[in-house]
Amino acid sequence: MGSALSHLVCGRCDARYDADIPQQRCPVEGAPLLVRYDFAAAARTLTREALARRAPTLWRYEELLPVRDAAMRVSLGEQMTPILPLPKIGALADLPQLAIKDEGLLPTGSFKARGAAVGVSRLRELGIDAFAMPTNGNAGGAWAAYAARAGIAAHVVIPVGAPQINRLETVITGASVALVDGLISDAGAIVARTAAQTQIFDASTLKEPYRIEGKKTIGFEIAEQYDWNLPDVIVYPTGGGVGLIGMEKAFRELQAIGLLGPKMPRFVAVQADGCMPIVEAWRAGREESVAPAHARTVAFGITVPKPLGDFLIIRILHGSAGCAVAVSDEALLAWQKTLASEEGLFACPEGGATLAAAVLLRKQGWIHRDDRVLLVNTGTGVKYPDVPYVMPAVIPIGATLAIATAPHD
Amino acid sequence: MGSALSHLVCGRCDARYDADIPQQRCPVEGAPLLVRYDFAAAARTLTREALARRAPTLWRYEELLPVRDAAMRVSLGEQMTPILPLPKIGALADLPQLAIKDEGLLPTGSFKARGAAVGVSRLRELGIDAFAMPTNGNAGGAWAAYAARAGIAAHVVIPVGAPQINRLETVITGASVALVDGLISDAGAIVARTAAQTQIFDASTLKEPYRIEGKKTIGFEIAEQYDWNLPDVIVYPTGGGVGLIGMEKAFRELQAIGLLGPKMPRFVAVQADGCMPIVEAWRAGREESVAPAHARTVAFGITVPKPLGDFLIIRILHGSAGCAVAVSDEALLAWQKTLASEEGLFACPEGGATLAAAVLLRKQGWIHRDDRVLLVNTGTGVKYPDVPYVMPAVIPIGATLAIATAPHD
Repeated sequence: MGSALSHLVCGRCDARYDADIPQQRCPVEGAPLLVRYDFAAAARTLTREALARRAPTLWRYEELLPVRDAAMRVSLGEQMTPILPLPKIGALADLPQLAIKDEGLLPTGSFKARGAAVGVSRLRELGIDAFAMPTNGNAGGAWAAYAARAGIAAHVVIPVGAPQINRLETVITGASVALVDGLISDAGAIVARTAAQTQIFDASTLKEPYRIEGKKTIGFEIAEQYDWNLPDVIVYPTGGGVGLIGMEKAFRELQAIGLLGPKMPRFVAVQADGCMPIVEAWRAGREESVAPAHARTVAFGITVPKPLGDFLIIRILHGSAGCAVAVSDEALLAWQKTLASEEGLFACPEGGATLAAAVLLRKQGWIHRDDRVLLVNTGTGVKYPDVPYVMPAVIPIGATLAIATAPHD
Repeated sequence: MGSALSHLVCGRCDARYDADIPQQRCPVEGAPLLVRYDFAAAARTLTREALARRAPTLWRYEELLPVRDAAMRVSLGEQMTPILPLPKIGALADLPQLAIKDEGLLPTGSFKARGAAVGVSRLRELGIDAFAMPTNGNAGGAWAAYAARAGIAAHVVIPVGAPQINRLETVITGASVALVDGLISDAGAIVARTAAQTQIFDASTLKEPYRIEGKKTIGFEIAEQYDWNLPDVIVYPTGGGVGLIGMEKAFRELQAIGLLGPKMPRFVAVQADGCMPIVEAWRAGREESVAPAHARTVAFGITVPKPLGDFLIIRILHGSAGCAVAVSDEALLAWQKTLASEEGLFACPEGGATLAAAVLLRKQGWIHRDDRVLLVNTGTGVKYPDVPYVMPAVIPIGATLAIATAPHD
């Protein structure tokens, strides 16, 4: 047991880098660095039988995680997240094998906790005691929380348009927070400038190698939860796309150690009409995205005008016979509401977008009736109190509710 | 395997009632009905060895849960919640064995999911297809969500002072919601009147027998997570007190089937200065509480002026050599903040109250240095966006962060 961490490679030019000193991006290409493992070593101990005996947290995959010393793990109790079948909506939308993985049950209420748990742990292990990062909100909340737990100083830059709750959770967990009247790309530029001037570690998405290693644990869990027979389609709300890149990496790694066969799911990258650089690149047959002039959607977490990993995302969509699709804010909010009222799951707007996309792709015939379709709900709806809803009536203290019948007897 | 459900008894007069028809309270005493099991049957299959092989959800304790048919279970993925050690605050407050159970990681972000999962499942099993209930917020959100999942109609009455997010989550999951310009006691009176007139099932706290059966699973998990050697002190934020009553019931049941020895933890019921009926009854040596003239605290979940189970709570405090203690809003908010910034856990204000109480009781010497102390954080802080915090500065797009040193190299 223990990490089978080997080295880092450039995602573009395959140059090799040392994993045991702090690294940012490939100095030649400026591309993300990806973590590589000794698969032969990992395969010896990471077996189905061993997994069955391990605690149900993301650390159960320790051979394929980059943290060498278990004492360096920073944990807020990141349990495996459940996969919920969606029978009522499945019947409604002719998707009888529809399910959703609810990442809202992770610490800080979003899948960002995966990247933060592993990313911050590895920073600690490498002796880094401060970092700066831009965020659309949930990542900042997660990294601030894990940094507090680790005793690492966090400097977080958040667009003013991000959900208010993300400011609060980031401030209260002790991070230094600045708001910028712009998008995450503007926040990222501030962090890049600061890192260049002060040498502070830049923990931006894909500008350091370890966040993706945490995110990929979604993929490990999906493989286990589907009993090592992956779903046919995985629908993922795509901003920076790290979860999607991570899932694909996870499946490749499980193939490499013999836990999965060659079959890959078709990946669907979902974006909102108001910010759809991946969808536009996909439609145009381009390998990279172009930032839109104006980017705006209620699904704030996927408002990423120019993802650094765009070429990796598009490569994965091609390689898996997947696709990229955009939905309107109206559609994603409507399906968010239906998901809550029919199935009891109050997902974030990005989760609503995955359902809107699945319904659309089923109508278009791209998804087949017998496909096992998995949606990824990236966070809890309670972090989005501004979602539109009808205000209930106020009744006087002496009132009685108007209920027509007495249904239970 | 399967439920060892036997019958119901009155919490006051021990009269026996049929568990397989819908029941509310004891018709003689008006007291809560408690669920009883066939312990001999449960003990045969609910062993430590069996538990080690079961999925990490609250349903693993099925012998001591009231749902007879597993197909009737209504689930939103309620995983076991983690227990986090609090080493930094432990050092600060001279409580080296301090830990917290984080119930914010349950569906809907609070421990209310336990009662709702089991309560709604049992309602479904009994053929009940509609209910009404009052709530301080989180219970309504949880019961509405599980009702939506089960296809049961929920009518929920919420005080206007309850957190806004609870309105949204209850409305969006399809419940009929009414707001009342009063407290939960006023909301409860509206539900009681409505139930009397329409015969709709009244799902109020302790007016039906099954919510407590879900809540008690906190206790089962604590016993397992402490390796069948219970903590010395459990600190619980007390409104209706169902979690406390449930934990004690869980420990007694585990004793009855031989999984626990006779040692009980000392239970601490924490309230806020602005609503402390249990504390006042405890200090006065009374067996029941008296509603305060004005009830108000930022910890809205524990604003319960006259808990129906007050006599059970006080009985448990006496029986366990426990105590009741009140803390100020200032203290609970200050410790909520310290918990977040030192340990990375953004708890609800009620969770902050448990920490404030533990610190106070340590100072007073009631808690000893070597006590293993467990706090119960009943929900996530992100459902309380109005918690006071310092607003971050807005910086221009072209700015650089002012970071004094370059700490990582």
